Amino acid sequence: MARLQSGLLGELVTALRRLPGVGPRSAQRMALHLLERDRKGASDLADALVAAVAGVGHCRLCRALAEAELCDVCADPQRDAGLLCVVESPSDLLAIEGAGGYRGRYFVLMGRLSPIDGVGPEDIGVPELLARLRDESVKEVILATNATVEGEATAHYLAEQVRAAGIDVSRIAHGVPVGGELEFVDGGTLSHAFSGRIRLS
Amino acid sequence: MARLQSGLLGELVTALRRLPGVGPRSAQRMALHLLERDRKGASDLADALVAAVAGVGHCRLCRALAEAELCDVCADPQRDAGLLCVVESPSDLLAIEGAGGYRGRYFVLMGRLSPIDGVGPEDIGVPELLARLRDESVKEVILATNATVEGEATAHYLAEQVRAAGIDVSRIAHGVPVGGELEFVDGGTLSHAFSGRIRLS
Repeated sequence: MARLQSGLLGELVTALRRLPGVGPRSAQRMALHLLERDRKGASDLADALVAAVAGVGHCRLCRALAEAELCDVCADPQRDAGLLCVVESPSDLLAIEGAGGYRGRYFVLMGRLSPIDGVGPEDIGVPELLARLRDESVKEVILATNATVEGEATAHYLAEQVRAAGIDVSRIAHGVPVGGELEFVDGGTLSHAFSGRIRLS
Repeated sequence: MARLQSGLLGELVTALRRLPGVGPRSAQRMALHLLERDRKGASDLADALVAAVAGVGHCRLCRALAEAELCDVCADPQRDAGLLCVVESPSDLLAIEGAGGYRGRYFVLMGRLSPIDGVGPEDIGVPELLARLRDESVKEVILATNATVEGEATAHYLAEQVRAAGIDVSRIAHGVPVGGELEFVDGGTLSHAFSGRIRLS
């Protein structure tokens, strides 16, 4: 199919391609759909983008995305101030909230340690995290960074820092997913499941 | 994963879902990506949407999307004014232009006849098409509507109208795709390929 490369349509296709998971064909389909059949949708999307960029900032305490100074979780007095769960991104926070059950608070790193990319402790808010541990009555820090190499390294580094501040620190369990069949579980996960086995009493 | 349902972020997710092929999870991923990592991209997209909605209209002659009164094809004096290809949508026009080879002009129906949905001849611009046939030196109308039931019905209706205007009318060939293996071609296409067979001389 010929590509829309010039003019306003071409610029719209280019702008749509900056959305994650949108390639040249999808971007063109989206642009044609909006202009042929849903101009109201295009205007609404433009308004929503402008409003969100202007109105959504970061929570002063946990650094998650928030419209007010504090996000909903940090502003909720019913959440347990003694538990602080550290995650890499707002989507991780949403995943945990969606699972339900956790009633503590969060700290969002907005990234992970990555010396190769020049991402150090200051970039992921470690000073702010340690300041919170000094100021608040946190009893346990739960490290819920991803189970990737960088996520593990970040958890390892944070564990040292939190322990040095005299506060309990734990890591979420890694193992066989609930409902998962051993046959289809990768080797790394199986090793984790074995080394992290829990004695039944 | 918990859904972002309220506030500015929720509104952005709702607006993104109006893009074709974007479900709730993709929309949330797009919204978080834009706000966490690409706020410039979000603003650029909003600008591009506003500019395209305001600046892209329809070509006065062929009804394709165009920024000026005439689209690039209709404004090009080198195109053969004797050939008029009728397509359902601007993406069909782009597909034909991308294939290259066709040097005539276009007429875009912006739809297809569909009595069930209340889409009649006026809605797909048949009066404008017949007016063009009267005013211009068109020698042959090539019907390139889709090979769907509605596309075929539309082609059948248009063929009658164009013939009544005393102008040659043809339908693009349907058959086995170039490079296609018979084994994997559907029955409808095979029937078309047989009924439309061309005698070799």
